[in-house]
Amino acid sequence: MESYMIWMPIVLAILGLIYMLIKRSWVMKQDAGDGKMKEISDHIYVGALAFLKAEYKLLTFFVIGASIALAGVATVVESTSYLIIIAFIIGAVFSAVAGNIGMRIATKTNVRTTQAAKTSLPKALNISFGGGTVMGLGVAGLAVLGLTAFFILFYKMFMGGEWTNTTDMTLVLETLAGFSLGAESIALFARVGGGIYTKAADVGADLVGKVEAGIPEDDPRNPATIADNVGDNVGDVAGMGADLFGSYVATVLAAMVLGNYIIKDMGGAITDAFGGIGPILLPMAIAGAGIIISIIGTFLVKISSNDAKEAQVQKALNIGNWTSIALVAAACFGLVTWMLPETMKMEFFGEGLQEISSMRVFYATLVGLVVGGAISSFTEYYTGLGKKPILNIVQQSSTGAATNIIAGLATGMISTFSSVLLFAVAIWASYAFAGFYGVAMAASAMMATTAMQLAIDAFGPIADNAGGIAEMSEQEPIVRERTDILDSVGNTTAATGKGFAIASAALTALALFAAYVTFTDIDGINIFKAPVLAMLFVGGMVPVVFSALAMSSVGKAAMEMVEEVRRQFKEIPGIMEGTGKPEYDKCVDISTKASLKQMLLPGILTIGFPIVIVLVGILIYPENHKLVAEMLGGYMAGVSVSGVLWAIFQNNAGGAWDNAKKSFEAGVEINGEMTYKGSDAHKAAVTGDTVGDPFKDTSGPSMNILIKLTCLIGLVIAPILGGHSIEEGLANRQSEINIEMSVGSDDIAMAKITHTAFVKGKEVVSEKIIKGTIEEVEAKLVAFENSKAYLKSKVKKVEITK
Amino acid sequence: MESYMIWMPIVLAILGLIYMLIKRSWVMKQDAGDGKMKEISDHIYVGALAFLKAEYKLLTFFVIGASIALAGVATVVESTSYLIIIAFIIGAVFSAVAGNIGMRIATKTNVRTTQAAKTSLPKALNISFGGGTVMGLGVAGLAVLGLTAFFILFYKMFMGGEWTNTTDMTLVLETLAGFSLGAESIALFARVGGGIYTKAADVGADLVGKVEAGIPEDDPRNPATIADNVGDNVGDVAGMGADLFGSYVATVLAAMVLGNYIIKDMGGAITDAFGGIGPILLPMAIAGAGIIISIIGTFLVKISSNDAKEAQVQKALNIGNWTSIALVAAACFGLVTWMLPETMKMEFFGEGLQEISSMRVFYATLVGLVVGGAISSFTEYYTGLGKKPILNIVQQSSTGAATNIIAGLATGMISTFSSVLLFAVAIWASYAFAGFYGVAMAASAMMATTAMQLAIDAFGPIADNAGGIAEMSEQEPIVRERTDILDSVGNTTAATGKGFAIASAALTALALFAAYVTFTDIDGINIFKAPVLAMLFVGGMVPVVFSALAMSSVGKAAMEMVEEVRRQFKEIPGIMEGTGKPEYDKCVDISTKASLKQMLLPGILTIGFPIVIVLVGILIYPENHKLVAEMLGGYMAGVSVSGVLWAIFQNNAGGAWDNAKKSFEAGVEINGEMTYKGSDAHKAAVTGDTVGDPFKDTSGPSMNILIKLTCLIGLVIAPILGGHSIEEGLANRQSEINIEMSVGSDDIAMAKITHTAFVKGKEVVSEKIIKGTIEEVEAKLVAFENSKAYLKSKVKKVEITK
Repeated sequence: MESYMIWMPIVLAILGLIYMLIKRSWVMKQDAGDGKMKEISDHIYVGALAFLKAEYKLLTFFVIGASIALAGVATVVESTSYLIIIAFIIGAVFSAVAGNIGMRIATKTNVRTTQAAKTSLPKALNISFGGGTVMGLGVAGLAVLGLTAFFILFYKMFMGGEWTNTTDMTLVLETLAGFSLGAESIALFARVGGGIYTKAADVGADLVGKVEAGIPEDDPRNPATIADNVGDNVGDVAGMGADLFGSYVATVLAAMVLGNYIIKDMGGAITDAFGGIGPILLPMAIAGAGIIISIIGTFLVKISSNDAKEAQVQKALNIGNWTSIALVAAACFGLVTWMLPETMKMEFFGEGLQEISSMRVFYATLVGLVVGGAISSFTEYYTGLGKKPILNIVQQSSTGAATNIIAGLATGMISTFSSVLLFAVAIWASYAFAGFYGVAMAASAMMATTAMQLAIDAFGPIADNAGGIAEMSEQEPIVRERTDILDSVGNTTAATGKGFAIASAALTALALFAAYVTFTDIDGINIFKAPVLAMLFVGGMVPVVFSALAMSSVGKAAMEMVEEVRRQFKEIPGIMEGTGKPEYDKCVDISTKASLKQMLLPGILTIGFPIVIVLVGILIYPENHKLVAEMLGGYMAGVSVSGVLWAIFQNNAGGAWDNAKKSFEAGVEINGEMTYKGSDAHKAAVTGDTVGDPFKDTSGPSMNILIKLTCLIGLVIAPILGGHSIEEGLANRQSEINIEMSVGSDDIAMAKITHTAFVKGKEVVSEKIIKGTIEEVEAKLVAFENSKAYLKSKVKKVEITK
Repeated sequence: MESYMIWMPIVLAILGLIYMLIKRSWVMKQDAGDGKMKEISDHIYVGALAFLKAEYKLLTFFVIGASIALAGVATVVESTSYLIIIAFIIGAVFSAVAGNIGMRIATKTNVRTTQAAKTSLPKALNISFGGGTVMGLGVAGLAVLGLTAFFILFYKMFMGGEWTNTTDMTLVLETLAGFSLGAESIALFARVGGGIYTKAADVGADLVGKVEAGIPEDDPRNPATIADNVGDNVGDVAGMGADLFGSYVATVLAAMVLGNYIIKDMGGAITDAFGGIGPILLPMAIAGAGIIISIIGTFLVKISSNDAKEAQVQKALNIGNWTSIALVAAACFGLVTWMLPETMKMEFFGEGLQEISSMRVFYATLVGLVVGGAISSFTEYYTGLGKKPILNIVQQSSTGAATNIIAGLATGMISTFSSVLLFAVAIWASYAFAGFYGVAMAASAMMATTAMQLAIDAFGPIADNAGGIAEMSEQEPIVRERTDILDSVGNTTAATGKGFAIASAALTALALFAAYVTFTDIDGINIFKAPVLAMLFVGGMVPVVFSALAMSSVGKAAMEMVEEVRRQFKEIPGIMEGTGKPEYDKCVDISTKASLKQMLLPGILTIGFPIVIVLVGILIYPENHKLVAEMLGGYMAGVSVSGVLWAIFQNNAGGAWDNAKKSFEAGVEINGEMTYKGSDAHKAAVTGDTVGDPFKDTSGPSMNILIKLTCLIGLVIAPILGGHSIEEGLANRQSEINIEMSVGSDDIAMAKITHTAFVKGKEVVSEKIIKGTIEEVEAKLVAFENSKAYLKSKVKKVEITK
């Protein structure tokens, strides 16, 4: 029986995309200002598209290479379908399109926000947030649309659109993992490449412009200023969008995988109004509902007074955000009650099968929503203006750059305490409520507000850009003041958005990790085995080295930028007087090329390490694929633990330095004396901010991708390692085992075990013969009767002939 | 049969201590220079003793508190002896005495080195290295003496000096763990407190002296300069000494624990010329041999030319070092061949019992020696003058402090790559050779050269101090030049010494980790269990937060110092002209108080977290102590992985910044231009160095203690969690199991299982009754017959009556 419910998420996704188009045309209809503004905006737009174009070119090669690798996997592993390649390509394309939509709208909204800020702050907020909404809905809509459509397609192809058994569904979901892998691969390019781009331009522009030439930020005389503004879009809009697109898809996928195992735990089939796949559909349904809820949330983001300050704008965003979260909680309650069997059976690791109420899945989703909210408040505490950690950094700036740096580093490091404890409790609690399905559902619920989160997040760089355009086109100071209010709020939302992104990445990774263990059918990951422990160490190291590579990349790219700007200052006559025109496009070009070149090494590290571990593992333990699977699992755990730590550390240290520097703009009290911009303490704070730039915008956010992509690659490789195990899994309830035992006259016994399994609809027969004395053969048969294959088999026949 | 071999390590330790006394009196007999020099040296000596006195006072309270806690453990856990308290106290006292010896000799040697440098560089090296040798032999001698003496004592008390069984030996070693815990607790105070002290003084002295007042380092007008020189001794001498004392003891202990399990794997008893405890004595024998080998190594450290440069001095140290390592390899070969049975049986996790040649234990020790050597070269590459990473940081200094900082951070981070891969391969290889006994023996072999390592290491701060005294007492420039050569080499040896210390801490932690798993008798640590995974995250976070606390402590203490120095500059008339006398002791006092106050929080974090995990775990899972044991194991693994990473990162980043700054002294080429001290680039490098100071001397080295102490606390707590398991363990080969089964006329069967075990010589009898149909009872009995208790039991009787 097919349920209409399977189509629900697609319908909601399409509704979301339609609303996105409406909003988009509304934004585009707004006044784009005068000639000078348009010109600058066009520069940014063209620069952004140039980056996208260069990125897509590189991506094409990557996608082709990865597709060949996937074809290799599909050839080697019987249970992997070639369709995974199609899913992978479309996943990559969808993610790229979502990034493209976001980048285009953001680079069109910026100038319109500037124009609106000439007359009205509420309208400027409306437009900039409108641009963010388009971005958010584009990402969420395409994610749900793509994932659901492919699920339905594979469900019909592999299972005829009807529930057969867990094994077939595993094949469906394994193939669907290709879509997720495609999305996350693009995220790697967008997040890491974009992160390098934005900071190379920013640091380069600041070092020569602000520090050496002494001209303000966004000054049109600075050749790197357009690249800097392009960078805001490339990194903060497209990078963040691709990151959350990847998280969204991976989380829902992992929840579906674990939902499938719930059905298995409940006897291999359930009867419900949803074609017997309620637990699998539930995460998709929540994701779909989240889109509509996010739209409702965006309606609430508005201010009325033209004299509003940061607090009012922040409040408007908070109301929208908290309403969405509350509505998602309500939706989860409704959908869980409706779609899940009232009581469910679930295998708890080491505790056996337990009967639990479906309400406990709802509680798990609440855990996810709490994590999403709490992590934002933690982030705000450690990076918010006027909060104790920031005041401390400001204080430490009075004794120079060194103490400012130490204080910033310490703030970032200490901020891991509360966040990691929160994660630990969340893992523990959501697992206690509903096993690893609970963990994945917690992540799904948190991710349901993705569209809203992205709208809030993308609004920041748009406002930042709007301020830049106001500066460069030399508008009245009031315009810049208004965009500065939006920008300042945007800085806070950028920090909290990063908190959300890392929380989502962490929970997604855990869900994928759980899915990995079930896919490979290992008994767990035992770090007391030396090779597994060794891989835990290696996994812990990778995020650190990855961060170093990303940071050095920024340094190298920024150096190139510095030299180019210095050259232009020297060679272009009249540039400092405003009569000579800087060559903006040369700087854009340097950022584009450098970022794409520099991201290769971290990219190779991310993708290469799991593959090397598996290859070396198989080489050393050709007979023990399960140990190799455990080693890869140890590696995944190492990457996740260390990656989460380094993400929080780097994001929060960077955010704290940034706002410590910003504190000087309004003036701060140090040792009883008011201190302002231009003071020595402020200069020290600027140094800290420059160090923090690659932390918070390049290496920190890249951790998300590293964690998720590592676990996803593991999931896609799983069938190779689970070769034997998959076969055992296939035995489940659809295989037959025959044991014929005969005892010869010489008292030598012989037992023949025939195992008939059905793989992809084909019959696979394997035979095993045991010979020996009667006692020996019987002992071996007892051992076999305790094996998984035997215990899981549907039909068991034993014939004994003397 | 008792073997004389058991006394061998004690004899060697005493020989080492005697040689130490001879060397000490030789050093003390050297000329201590003129009045001014003596006066400064006395200031340093008095300051150092003031710190030790304050530290010991605090320690007394700690030791009393910890003893009470241990008494609590001994009361609750039947298998824990009260003697553990004595062992703990003596361990603490021995470690403190070792630190005291080192500190006293170092603060006496410094001025003698200055005096010698007036006439001869070879003699200056001779004296400063002689001081280091006294320190090294004091630490190693006391460690081996204490550990061996307690082992013999407990061996006689619990086992009558004769092998009985593994369980009794486990009690001996569990009690011996108290000695190790005492040593490591002192290390916490010495390393963390000392680290805060030295950097608070250094940063404070530099910030006001060098940066604000523009006077050179070690200028006698700077009130903080004595505190700075005291700090070198407190941190680099006493801290390092206590750290390696702790590692030495813990490594040997862990190897003994695992040696005990080898005997168990070999059938519970072996016959050899060493009273049947060869595998347990071996690590002690290697440690004892290492003392004599180190003495031989120190003979080789000398130069002949008065015009020698850094390279010759470094070569002299290298010859001594490499000779010691080679001799230890030879000693390991001899001792392994002599003391171990030619073929041994060893349980390999998941692979069952395997027969291996004892040669494979020798190979494992070689792995340890290679790790010790390789880690030093890696460290030298990333922190050495003239190497690529340093040149890169120098280059990046030209664009300001921010790029210098980014480059330094990136260098530290990327340096984790090779070191962690080395550890991973070492874990894998030494385990593959000889199981976890192999891992522990690798660590033991590496630690055998501790005395030599410490001599090389302690020589650095002595030379640094000698230079300071030369500066403060206004000697001829040639004196400072000579001490600078020694100091410069000392900086390199300090960095490589830190590499050695973290490698030793990592291997020690692994060995303790393995001992922990065997003590608790869990089947491993499965991170797929959500609570265990949650604790892995928490464990990963602790080193980061610990580092942050340590760094902030330096910042806070340095601020107090800055204000005091500023006050003195302002209030003491004629201080800048050299007519007014600075109040050195006030600065010493600030450093002392601040460091001891500030180390409390990190200390509480280290000790408190494992205890909280166990308490909360038992509260949540009162019935499942094994799960709690796994959770604590997950925490230990998290701390180890993350701690090793942060140690390498921080040590190497700090070392790299330091030498990047130093590069400017001889002049560096940046963009084709020679750049020197006083340039903007140099100023940027000074900022980097200041950031690196707490990294490399406070938080980085503290990681060693954090890792080891965490695993040691786990080991001491283990018997609480292993309550049930210990009982099972006790069943091993000395318990009896009787099964009486009877079948009534109504076909209802009843089985009575009587289990008689011997705990601490007392008989403990437990009974279990199974009732049901014949099939049910038989099924349950089959299950029982697969239980550990049954399989391990010596006598099994089954009686069936109908």
